[in-house]
Amino acid sequence: MALEVFHKDETLQMRRKLIGQSCRLFFSRDPVKIVRARGQYLYDENGMQYLDCISNVQHVGHCHPSLTQAAAAQMDLLNSNTRFLHDNIVLYADRLAATLPKKLCVFYFVNSGSEANDLALRLARQYTRHHDVVVLDHAYHGHLISLIDISPYKFRKLEGQKEWVHVAPLPDTYHGIYREDHPDPGQAYADTVKSLIDEAHKKGCKISSFFAESLPSVGGQIIFPTGYCKRVAEYVREAGGVYVADEIQTGFGRVGSHFWAFQLQGEDFCPDIVTMGKPIGNGHPIACVATTEEIAAAFTANGVEYFNTFGGNPVSCAIGLAVLDVIEKEDLRGNAVRVGGHLKQLLLQLQTKHPLIGDVRGVGLFIGMELVKDRASRKPATEEAAHLVRRLKEERIVMSTDGPWDSVIKFKPPMCFSIEDAERVCTCIDQILRGLSETLNVILPNRRSHLHTSQLLQPCCFYNHPLANYFHLKFQRKFILNKDRKSSRKRNGCDTDVM
Amino acid sequence: MALEVFHKDETLQMRRKLIGQSCRLFFSRDPVKIVRARGQYLYDENGMQYLDCISNVQHVGHCHPSLTQAAAAQMDLLNSNTRFLHDNIVLYADRLAATLPKKLCVFYFVNSGSEANDLALRLARQYTRHHDVVVLDHAYHGHLISLIDISPYKFRKLEGQKEWVHVAPLPDTYHGIYREDHPDPGQAYADTVKSLIDEAHKKGCKISSFFAESLPSVGGQIIFPTGYCKRVAEYVREAGGVYVADEIQTGFGRVGSHFWAFQLQGEDFCPDIVTMGKPIGNGHPIACVATTEEIAAAFTANGVEYFNTFGGNPVSCAIGLAVLDVIEKEDLRGNAVRVGGHLKQLLLQLQTKHPLIGDVRGVGLFIGMELVKDRASRKPATEEAAHLVRRLKEERIVMSTDGPWDSVIKFKPPMCFSIEDAERVCTCIDQILRGLSETLNVILPNRRSHLHTSQLLQPCCFYNHPLANYFHLKFQRKFILNKDRKSSRKRNGCDTDVM
Repeated sequence: MALEVFHKDETLQMRRKLIGQSCRLFFSRDPVKIVRARGQYLYDENGMQYLDCISNVQHVGHCHPSLTQAAAAQMDLLNSNTRFLHDNIVLYADRLAATLPKKLCVFYFVNSGSEANDLALRLARQYTRHHDVVVLDHAYHGHLISLIDISPYKFRKLEGQKEWVHVAPLPDTYHGIYREDHPDPGQAYADTVKSLIDEAHKKGCKISSFFAESLPSVGGQIIFPTGYCKRVAEYVREAGGVYVADEIQTGFGRVGSHFWAFQLQGEDFCPDIVTMGKPIGNGHPIACVATTEEIAAAFTANGVEYFNTFGGNPVSCAIGLAVLDVIEKEDLRGNAVRVGGHLKQLLLQLQTKHPLIGDVRGVGLFIGMELVKDRASRKPATEEAAHLVRRLKEERIVMSTDGPWDSVIKFKPPMCFSIEDAERVCTCIDQILRGLSETLNVILPNRRSHLHTSQLLQPCCFYNHPLANYFHLKFQRKFILNKDRKSSRKRNGCDTDVM
Repeated sequence: MALEVFHKDETLQMRRKLIGQSCRLFFSRDPVKIVRARGQYLYDENGMQYLDCISNVQHVGHCHPSLTQAAAAQMDLLNSNTRFLHDNIVLYADRLAATLPKKLCVFYFVNSGSEANDLALRLARQYTRHHDVVVLDHAYHGHLISLIDISPYKFRKLEGQKEWVHVAPLPDTYHGIYREDHPDPGQAYADTVKSLIDEAHKKGCKISSFFAESLPSVGGQIIFPTGYCKRVAEYVREAGGVYVADEIQTGFGRVGSHFWAFQLQGEDFCPDIVTMGKPIGNGHPIACVATTEEIAAAFTANGVEYFNTFGGNPVSCAIGLAVLDVIEKEDLRGNAVRVGGHLKQLLLQLQTKHPLIGDVRGVGLFIGMELVKDRASRKPATEEAAHLVRRLKEERIVMSTDGPWDSVIKFKPPMCFSIEDAERVCTCIDQILRGLSETLNVILPNRRSHLHTSQLLQPCCFYNHPLANYFHLKFQRKFILNKDRKSSRKRNGCDTDVM
């Protein structure tokens, strides 16, 4: 198979013509054309290798040969649908059940995380006979109409908030209303959910569900404070609702110590519905909803079939099974603990050197490094984060940002990421931040002052400075912000919701 | 790879425990376990061969080696997402564009027909700034929350009709308000849409779109009367809405003479949005939305990214391209014309022999044979259709029913279906219907009278009669109908929406 059919320019031209422009490219001003990949490495059309720090979908590594073999063998044998009996779907459900608390023992297979969350919403509503949903601020749960409604990250830019959606504060102890110095932020944030439910009840609303990623990703790689989920689940169940744990970005061992991120909250917490996606098939379109017998029974009781044409087909399940095998055989959870732990340590060391690094947080290979203008105000260093990502790309490291201000550098690499990879990326970050800091001290002795934009527009030697891109970006951003604040988060030509 | 891991009974037991029971099995009282397939043939765990008359998803035939090769080669090379540049997506969009009118030149790739229709609804609303939707009665457009709302086939059993949904009569010239003897049923049915729009306008509603399958499938394998779509499109556009052609079941050459079923309505009709699914990847989860530059531009203008994690990935596109290649290389459209034409002729011949066959309709390999109690009243022969399907299964032919009364025997086989297959299935149908007719004449000389149910319950030699199943079913149905009319359509343990 040819690695490349068209020259990169032609691919780009065709893409602009043929593919809806709402589908954005990474690094839109100079996108990357990737033609092959293996493990944690991507290769462009010239054979240049990139270290991949963000492809959480390619969970066990790009193009794992076991998966290709499993897919090809099953494709050669049978691909049908769930109306025929087949062993793969029951084998696979059984294997998934073994990773979950006993209570979560009924499965529905679908094709994407979005389809999983949409079905979870149907299950919750059918079981509770309630309609309203509580979600966390800045959350993203998928691209479908039903999910944009429960994703503040999206609906704030689109249709706005529906009356049946209730937005609770993100339990972010770095930026939020209760911070790391609070004696019990888990309880305090859970109480905000309780208040929201009480308010909803006063308006006559009935809560069907609380939806949350077990570690909010688009929200900025947030780690829930201890006890939060358990208390929220209690409040939601008291209101007759159910707890939906969106594990689409965080499941399948990414946190290392546990198979599911919700398990970080202790053995006495168990969601009522768990949705899975992204890493489940290592890139193959498969996703899943796990729930309790009671909820499944209520859904069956409506007497209407749920049929998903491709969901749970023998090929998808064969690939899903192969992913579980590789996670076990290659001890990828152990690797996430070891490499993730080491990476976090390295980033914490960098934090002692670089005032720009305000916070380092995460578990396993789900890590966020938040950049701030200064540590006292915690003002997000959005441009600096974008600059870092662009400079890392020049060093052939693919990285991205997240969080409400795109100020969080997010690590969600394939789970075969190595100690050497972690050291390489941290060395690069160190160099880039050192360069940034030195230059800022030369050009802007007072870091809080602003370079006058006219200086940037003058044709001077500044443009040859290594930081020209950074200032150009800063100027562009200022200009855009003045023009239209809403579009400012798009300056990279890419939202950061889904990698 | 082992063909079978568990004994069939154990598979069934595990399935009942682990998989949500809303996911139903064909022939729920004695489901079929299929372990391998090739072309138009399925094989059960004992190696018994079944002729597959309904798997329209496995469009170019089960387990086509070209597709397995294409998938494996690309899986070994790269599977990423649309934020990186790649040739496959533009190659594939370009190939699809060549099958469509020039106006439909912008593409979005997703994972399922449901995701495609959900996106189509977003596109229509964003472009028109209107909200309401006109749909056809009995229509099914997908399993997502947004699509149940526009699927009378589903919402009538669930949430009911939303105020923004307007249901137009199904232009069914066999059962509908205007029949084959009407001088211009296309115009007459289009006028019902016009009236509906006028009524909606009076209530202050604004129409975003008209959604229709280009050949309504769940509705009963309906062929639109000449001129219908063009006139409807005119009315809908006059109202500021767009025409969405759901080609999920009917596209990719199934009708033989054309690549898309909407093209049967003539060159002067072109939808504004076309959605594709099912056959597009021969079972691999891929789907697509094609639209105009203007609609795509309006969607881009909202400034919000559309990212679909798996949609349009290099593997999905490689498989999509391989499907297009096979359709061309093996002249499957030509085969659909030849075999479909022959099959229809054979069924029409059967109609002359069997009063039970009320109507035979269809194009290419999309054919419906409707059974009626008697031809004058056109009363649907639901039990007889179910009996025929069960008896065909005994003859190792997999068939299914569709239509509002499940009285339509539907043919949507893999496109490699042969003349011999068509003759085999028609010979079987002939024998079964002859047997049914002879037995009815012996047992029930007056076909309209009813056997008293007590006679069926008596332990007598009747139970050994070849029609025992039929009468047992008939009794069961009567019983269920009395108990709960709503659940009557589920007696086969399976809705008929999606095969």
